[in-house]
Amino acid sequence: MTTAAHRREHDLLGDRDVPAEAYWGIHTLRATENFPITGTPISAYPHLIDALAAVKEATALANEELGLLDPVKAAAIVEACREIRAGRLHDQFVVDVIQGGAGTSTNMNVNEVVANRALELLGRPKGDYGHLHPNEDVNLSQSTNDVYPTAVRVATVFAVRGLLAAMTVLQDAFAGKAVEFRDVLKMGRTQLQDAVPMTLGQEFSAYAVMLEEDRSRLSEAAELIHEINLGATAIGTGLNAPAGYAEAVRRHLTRVTGLPLVTAANLVEATQDCGAFVQMSGVLKRIAVKLSKSCNDLRLLSSGPRAGLNEINLPPVQAGSSIMPGKVNPVIPEVVNQVAFEVIGNDVTITMAAEAGQLQLNAFEPIILHALSESITHLREACLTLAQRCVTGITANTDQLRAAVENSIGLVTALNPHIGYMAATEIAKEALATGRGVAELVLEKNLLPADRLEALLRPEVVAGSGSPRL
Amino acid sequence: MTTAAHRREHDLLGDRDVPAEAYWGIHTLRATENFPITGTPISAYPHLIDALAAVKEATALANEELGLLDPVKAAAIVEACREIRAGRLHDQFVVDVIQGGAGTSTNMNVNEVVANRALELLGRPKGDYGHLHPNEDVNLSQSTNDVYPTAVRVATVFAVRGLLAAMTVLQDAFAGKAVEFRDVLKMGRTQLQDAVPMTLGQEFSAYAVMLEEDRSRLSEAAELIHEINLGATAIGTGLNAPAGYAEAVRRHLTRVTGLPLVTAANLVEATQDCGAFVQMSGVLKRIAVKLSKSCNDLRLLSSGPRAGLNEINLPPVQAGSSIMPGKVNPVIPEVVNQVAFEVIGNDVTITMAAEAGQLQLNAFEPIILHALSESITHLREACLTLAQRCVTGITANTDQLRAAVENSIGLVTALNPHIGYMAATEIAKEALATGRGVAELVLEKNLLPADRLEALLRPEVVAGSGSPRL
Amino acid sequence: MTTAAHRREHDLLGDRDVPAEAYWGIHTLRATENFPITGTPISAYPHLIDALAAVKEATALANEELGLLDPVKAAAIVEACREIRAGRLHDQFVVDVIQGGAGTSTNMNVNEVVANRALELLGRPKGDYGHLHPNEDVNLSQSTNDVYPTAVRVATVFAVRGLLAAMTVLQDAFAGKAVEFRDVLKMGRTQLQDAVPMTLGQEFSAYAVMLEEDRSRLSEAAELIHEINLGATAIGTGLNAPAGYAEAVRRHLTRVTGLPLVTAANLVEATQDCGAFVQMSGVLKRIAVKLSKSCNDLRLLSSGPRAGLNEINLPPVQAGSSIMPGKVNPVIPEVVNQVAFEVIGNDVTITMAAEAGQLQLNAFEPIILHALSESITHLREACLTLAQRCVTGITANTDQLRAAVENSIGLVTALNPHIGYMAATEIAKEALATGRGVAELVLEKNLLPADRLEALLRPEVVAGSGSPRL
Amino acid sequence: MTTAAHRREHDLLGDRDVPAEAYWGIHTLRATENFPITGTPISAYPHLIDALAAVKEATALANEELGLLDPVKAAAIVEACREIRAGRLHDQFVVDVIQGGAGTSTNMNVNEVVANRALELLGRPKGDYGHLHPNEDVNLSQSTNDVYPTAVRVATVFAVRGLLAAMTVLQDAFAGKAVEFRDVLKMGRTQLQDAVPMTLGQEFSAYAVMLEEDRSRLSEAAELIHEINLGATAIGTGLNAPAGYAEAVRRHLTRVTGLPLVTAANLVEATQDCGAFVQMSGVLKRIAVKLSKSCNDLRLLSSGPRAGLNEINLPPVQAGSSIMPGKVNPVIPEVVNQVAFEVIGNDVTITMAAEAGQLQLNAFEPIILHALSESITHLREACLTLAQRCVTGITANTDQLRAAVENSIGLVTALNPHIGYMAATEIAKEALATGRGVAELVLEKNLLPADRLEALLRPEVVAGSGSPRL
Repeated sequence: MTTAAHRREHDLLGDRDVPAEAYWGIHTLRATENFPITGTPISAYPHLIDALAAVKEATALANEELGLLDPVKAAAIVEACREIRAGRLHDQFVVDVIQGGAGTSTNMNVNEVVANRALELLGRPKGDYGHLHPNEDVNLSQSTNDVYPTAVRVATVFAVRGLLAAMTVLQDAFAGKAVEFRDVLKMGRTQLQDAVPMTLGQEFSAYAVMLEEDRSRLSEAAELIHEINLGATAIGTGLNAPAGYAEAVRRHLTRVTGLPLVTAANLVEATQDCGAFVQMSGVLKRIAVKLSKSCNDLRLLSSGPRAGLNEINLPPVQAGSSIMPGKVNPVIPEVVNQVAFEVIGNDVTITMAAEAGQLQLNAFEPIILHALSESITHLREACLTLAQRCVTGITANTDQLRAAVENSIGLVTALNPHIGYMAATEIAKEALATGRGVAELVLEKNLLPADRLEALLRPEVVAGSGSPRL
Repeated sequence: MTTAAHRREHDLLGDRDVPAEAYWGIHTLRATENFPITGTPISAYPHLIDALAAVKEATALANEELGLLDPVKAAAIVEACREIRAGRLHDQFVVDVIQGGAGTSTNMNVNEVVANRALELLGRPKGDYGHLHPNEDVNLSQSTNDVYPTAVRVATVFAVRGLLAAMTVLQDAFAGKAVEFRDVLKMGRTQLQDAVPMTLGQEFSAYAVMLEEDRSRLSEAAELIHEINLGATAIGTGLNAPAGYAEAVRRHLTRVTGLPLVTAANLVEATQDCGAFVQMSGVLKRIAVKLSKSCNDLRLLSSGPRAGLNEINLPPVQAGSSIMPGKVNPVIPEVVNQVAFEVIGNDVTITMAAEAGQLQLNAFEPIILHALSESITHLREACLTLAQRCVTGITANTDQLRAAVENSIGLVTALNPHIGYMAATEIAKEALATGRGVAELVLEKNLLPADRLEALLRPEVVAGSGSPRL
Repeated sequence: MTTAAHRREHDLLGDRDVPAEAYWGIHTLRATENFPITGTPISAYPHLIDALAAVKEATALANEELGLLDPVKAAAIVEACREIRAGRLHDQFVVDVIQGGAGTSTNMNVNEVVANRALELLGRPKGDYGHLHPNEDVNLSQSTNDVYPTAVRVATVFAVRGLLAAMTVLQDAFAGKAVEFRDVLKMGRTQLQDAVPMTLGQEFSAYAVMLEEDRSRLSEAAELIHEINLGATAIGTGLNAPAGYAEAVRRHLTRVTGLPLVTAANLVEATQDCGAFVQMSGVLKRIAVKLSKSCNDLRLLSSGPRAGLNEINLPPVQAGSSIMPGKVNPVIPEVVNQVAFEVIGNDVTITMAAEAGQLQLNAFEPIILHALSESITHLREACLTLAQRCVTGITANTDQLRAAVENSIGLVTALNPHIGYMAATEIAKEALATGRGVAELVLEKNLLPADRLEALLRPEVVAGSGSPRL
Repeated sequence: MTTAAHRREHDLLGDRDVPAEAYWGIHTLRATENFPITGTPISAYPHLIDALAAVKEATALANEELGLLDPVKAAAIVEACREIRAGRLHDQFVVDVIQGGAGTSTNMNVNEVVANRALELLGRPKGDYGHLHPNEDVNLSQSTNDVYPTAVRVATVFAVRGLLAAMTVLQDAFAGKAVEFRDVLKMGRTQLQDAVPMTLGQEFSAYAVMLEEDRSRLSEAAELIHEINLGATAIGTGLNAPAGYAEAVRRHLTRVTGLPLVTAANLVEATQDCGAFVQMSGVLKRIAVKLSKSCNDLRLLSSGPRAGLNEINLPPVQAGSSIMPGKVNPVIPEVVNQVAFEVIGNDVTITMAAEAGQLQLNAFEPIILHALSESITHLREACLTLAQRCVTGITANTDQLRAAVENSIGLVTALNPHIGYMAATEIAKEALATGRGVAELVLEKNLLPADRLEALLRPEVVAGSGSPRL
């Protein structure tokens, strides 16, 4: 029996009582019972909620424009959507992020919240669906199968913008260090073995360039997800959507979101395809791979202080150990490594979900949305954290770095053209046998005057032609 | 300057103000600032918090027993730990689940909470560490490097128990259907092509057996993680832990947790090794693979109702579509599929984290803990949901299933020994050419009397020797 | 002791006897002993051998142009390289595809083969390195660290062209079926449940469109690998390469290969970065995911013949079973599925190899080359096989497909606007209760005249606006 | 038209000419045309060929015992199988390792080769199947669906034995170094930062212990694949196999192979399940993870020689660079890393193939066999290569290692109980400020007598209780 604290709603399976204050309704209620998997509601992804509201606003406007929806109802729906996009009512989005049903529960959650808020705006009680109905009005000319993929795409574009900005911050931090360390000589290494000299600035410059390239790739992948399938309805044939609807709704959604959206040329294909998400995840994985590589390097270069490479110092951000006083660990790069491992795992999850789609629909887009959002959000935080709590505070142990160059056998390779191959080989042999440094031996044997050697070790000479000096 | 709302604490990096009411302290504060990655605090994994408290209780008792810790302090620490294990103070575990530092921040979070609660129990203000210190007392004879792996192992054993119970529920649900459908004849399929007859009971029996086997594998993997490294301290040499400590703490932790824990024979190896976690994740992946396969089958067998196999009916748990009235979708198997994809992705994450360990420690155990906990918890919910909201309510379309057998060409294979190879081949040809059923033709041509054919299609005959009838 | 059958060669580690007839030398010999992993020599990847020869030809020409290499030597080297590119001497490339050393052994294998063949062309015996040296002449101004990545990139571009062509063949096959089946009505399905009508042509059109999009993505990824790092030498600083060399060698390699190659702007970054390979592998994975999905569909749609969907027939290409006469299995889609699983696994391998790079070089490019080549080659064969042995021979069971539409409840959704919502609901209820078809009931109740119903089921009406009719 | 060079054979699809000398027949011919994917024939996996021959020998004996197969035919089949198991005729196994059809082509390849060789032994021409038939005699009482999984399992057990032996060789090599280096003092590291002292012997001991544990896990996983499904025939119901057959054939196969095989309790489940392969691959992945970690450590510890850790020296096995004379790279660990990456990728492939199984059969076992064989074989070669070409030749830079201990701040942690916390803290501060060594300062300040300090740095003291000294 319904009490004052509840209202009764009805669906295909029968009646249920819904809390009177809830903006969500019976479909949402059943979904929360059916999917108790993670405990994380879809409100954890505010970009998705905003995108869903944007879609509902655009569809209401298109339906009104085409004469399918009463202007009074349309106005109420639009107002409700704008409130949501302004950050209100997000706590009403309660279905679990991992859900069956290809996003139907998410779509019904938004249909119900918008309908009930619109009813309120019209002075009606919640649940008075005879006046404005979640399905017949809010979901008019739509299907979950075009609403949900479109919203996921819009949400992903929003999220990617945040990641791009964070990557720029990190790139700038690395580039700043590339300038700062442009004159710091060091040994380059291949396969962890001493190779030939370079500058520390070049090393950091490479990290900055990697990020720049990754940003380009990410922007390209984001382009692909501007393609939407609104107007497809159930399977792409556009059944029950009126003529002109697809174009009208695209126009409205473009205006509402500010994104240059295009409608897919083949809606049947677009409705079943997750290729753009696989591509996006592949690019996120690429970013993760290179961020992780950079952090591996930072941890290696800062190893020590006594029994390690000790080339650079990461800023201490917390005590490293209770048992070993004074120990400071590279905790920021470490956390970034872990985010990278997570993103790489998420890529496998997304791959499997995409592969599992069947016939006219992929039922597994909710886990794709979940994994993709997690990857983007965590990468964004990882980039910002790495930039602000680590890279900007890095210092170099300049003397130690230069001593390693002068001491290294690899220096011979660089001196080869100047002292001759025979002399170079002899110096290398003696250095190896005695443990003495190459520079020292070259000077001792008067193979080069000190100023000449000094000149050959000038940073701009060592840096060579391979890397633009910032 | 400290106000009444704060207390001032000090560490290697300097002073910081901590909220007066917080049980956590300065190390936790810095960690929350350093790791803003997921927004999910470690309190989201209550088994981990319980396990950490159990470790701290056991170490206090061992330290007291060996004369290193004052009995009054020990008692206060033990009491604080018991409160935590009883579910109190969990909101004080606030560091992010993805964190750098090999778990140091998690260990310090528990050290600080236990110390401050113990201080309160002793009538002292929070932060009065001169009387009871997070490091010197709560963390005595310990290092993050033995505390954290041990706690992760204990927590994982706790969590696995829940999963095993849920798998039993699902196994029982499948086994119940195997009995219910023992007499339901159907066509077996290989490579999606009609093969030879079987019973629907056999089909469900296979799902039950898969779960039984997976439970055995999971139990075996859980055995491996009963091996702990408490007493290893920083790198396994036991530096700063007194003689007899490793055995004493193991004895206490066994009593506190009720688990038959053993100390690793080689603590240096045990401190750096993540093999048992990789193994555990591999078994979880195996479970996910087979759950996903079973759910794929359930979705396929219930496809239709008109243009699909339509062999079984899944209980409707929510309306499937707003645009297509009456449509009901297999949302419960679909959500289980998605959990499986997540678990498989998590396995890659764990693999990469384990591979990235260097020298005497794996710094990436926090992401291993996170991914492992997520996999176990979500699989548990998935099993329960599948059992309770889907499998127990499945019904069979018995007539349609039997008609398919009688109609199938594959029936010829079964009749071969009874009507002769030549006749069987002729029947098959005619059935193919005319579209008529094999059973019908056999009767029409008097190749077998009706009762004899009926006898050959008795479920116990069809089921053969391959699968015990429940 | 050296016999007539051998010649003695010398390197850093001492002397070794090499078979007299071998064009490879001591470095190759040691590498074959050091890396007995797969038994597959690099000659298994002819595109790589061709690319290596092209690089050696271009470097010889650049060195000659810059006055570093004697024209007689240069001419001999160039001639040797052209022979290799014409398909000769490929059996001399004997080092294992999985090898340590960042490709050094592959580079030395080509240096030695080219040197010895060039010596022969100059009328000198093999091994007479005083006259033309593998390192000092063939490898002049180079390092493995710029030669190997450049050759892998050129080889990958060559291989990708073959894949693109094969994808076009498959796309055309699907598009041909889309035209052939443009008037075949069928039920569309979402989540394996009957949804709304569509045409079989639309279904195949989607597969064609997916391939078209994937080809675009693959072409874009191929663009990225036109960027080379020749001139970087050991770590990107260009040490020991003369001024103007990078540009000269790029120009020559562009001419030799016919590819529009560009030199990376930052050679230090380019020498350590594997991002373009990760990106390429990600796109190959995307292709694999969608090919696998398409094959899953083909296997599902052709399931039966009696107890399955039986919508389409795949051409029989081999007997399916010895025990079940007449059984024909979807073996071609099955083999494509397996190639897809392999490509997806290879992507993880490539990801891990890329992540494991350290500092100025990624030492793990050989496994990247191996996995990438395997993925591209196997996908190419899979596409061709699928097109030629399966798709082009597919036929449709038109009557059965149309009957399913007329019989389906989902038809109600389409008739809704024409018979009214109330009548539609009643028809759906009766169809469900009686098992009768919707079309039949609509006609029986005179809700629509037969010609009107027929008109609504015309393919062009059903197909709607969602998919261009081919 | 058939020429003397060919014989004509017939199957479901019609007639084809087979080369007269071929032991394989028409089914194999079609399969080679249908599956041109890798170019690698199944003969590349000799264990599989042996296992298939063993199965055919055992089934012939069981069929003879049960009176189904003429003793003369049985004897000929048995003799043919024994020849194959002795290594003959392997070149007749020509179908591609990646094939559709759930292994049917592999099964038919062996049926045809055995039949034709048996016919020869009986004095009949090849192709004279009226006298002895590939299907009716060689495949009697069998289906691909029980033959193929059983053979894959037997082959895997054979292959695993080789891997276990290789792991033992590597374990012994590490254990030998653990003894050799038992007295070599060094700094232990956590998170790449200096931690506390240990011995180099302990470090190598950990690698040996990891392998020992992995061997245990591998043996357990191998146990699981002793369970076979012979007698299941098509789907596990045992259709067309006589009473007593499953037990008889298991008995014969146990004798033929020498393996303690058991028949699965539920043959329906066993016929569709790939769990044991997923488990096996998971364990191989675990081995790969830890091998890779060990090789990462070896490369790190041997980094330098001047600008790296330079703690140990790997034996040089080939020249490292043409451009940098004298450079020697860690090529053996590098190749092992790459094998590990491949094994980890293969695990994903196997996972996807296992998940994709549908209903009564997994059609994707061929790729599982391929990936599993590759992982096992390559890991075996990697272990042997690592042992023989790297580990046994490793030497330690003892003086440098000890100096790092004496110089390290981390030494303070060990001296803490002996000089007091206050003094220790002062020493640490001074060491950090001046760059001087802790041991030096302790002696200078007379905080400890030299012999006492020496005693505290004795290897057996430093090693502590954590790791048994070998």
